[in-house]
Amino acid sequence: MRGAALKRVPLDHESRMRDNDHQALRLWLRILTCTNLIESAVRARLRASFNCTLPRFDLMAQLERHPEGLKMGELSRRLMVTGGNVTGITGQLVKEGLVTREPLLNDRRANLVKLTPAGSKAFNRMAQEHEQWVSRLFSHLPERDRRQLHLLLGALKTGLTNH
Amino acid sequence: MRGAALKRVPLDHESRMRDNDHQALRLWLRILTCTNLIESAVRARLRASFNCTLPRFDLMAQLERHPEGLKMGELSRRLMVTGGNVTGITGQLVKEGLVTREPLLNDRRANLVKLTPAGSKAFNRMAQEHEQWVSRLFSHLPERDRRQLHLLLGALKTGLTNH
Repeated sequence: MRGAALKRVPLDHESRMRDNDHQALRLWLRILTCTNLIESAVRARLRASFNCTLPRFDLMAQLERHPEGLKMGELSRRLMVTGGNVTGITGQLVKEGLVTREPLLNDRRANLVKLTPAGSKAFNRMAQEHEQWVSRLFSHLPERDRRQLHLLLGALKTGLTNH
Repeated sequence: MRGAALKRVPLDHESRMRDNDHQALRLWLRILTCTNLIESAVRARLRASFNCTLPRFDLMAQLERHPEGLKMGELSRRLMVTGGNVTGITGQLVKEGLVTREPLLNDRRANLVKLTPAGSKAFNRMAQEHEQWVSRLFSHLPERDRRQLHLLLGALKTGLTNH
């Protein structure tokens, strides 16, 4: 490179970059670990208390938020956990009388999926307990820390969405 | 708080509880959303740059951290992302000369999986870029916020692990 002093510039820059990279990677692995720990706790409790899988709960949650119904494709896109087979879960819920799946009037190739009143009732019973489990999972964090975490993740999310 | 005011105590307590529950649930959904956003960005880049899936990258990352090799069961347990078929991915990596899968001397029913030197080289090439992608995904957060987030998630993780 140029001159003795300059020699160290690329190295310093590089090692600072590497520190930033390592820090970001550690942060990402920590987010992922927390997600996995919470997910597996919720999964186990849904199974034990309601014999329900997380993808099935997730699918019903999306439908509860959309009483007007969702097309199968929209439903798939909105799911927050992976590993579920949307067609299979929906078919099972139809059989149990918890959702309806009707062809759309203006697009007969698309099906509109809706919770039935019984489905909504079943979901809300689970959702109430689910909310308490989640609350307990976070209860060791002081409220101030939870609020701070919420804010920081909000900033992260905004940046990620605009990426 | 005793006398007329007491009447309001159970209600206040209950509504505070409900607020806490809602807050925890919102926090959990935000963590999950951030995880999903980062995961799908990384997934897309791995695919585009290396024609590699995230579960395959994850599997190679675990092997890189364990040069002594891992049994199939250990390998499965250590994976951080879902959706991969460990046996299928391992078989494919063996075919490509990137890992070896050998029966253990003292337990011939168990296979020990190791990265080959070529596998290690291929992984490190991807890992370097992966680290930079992740770094960029977090780059809109000031360093102070990243550090703060790391600390708060550390406290969350500790609580979850001791749960």
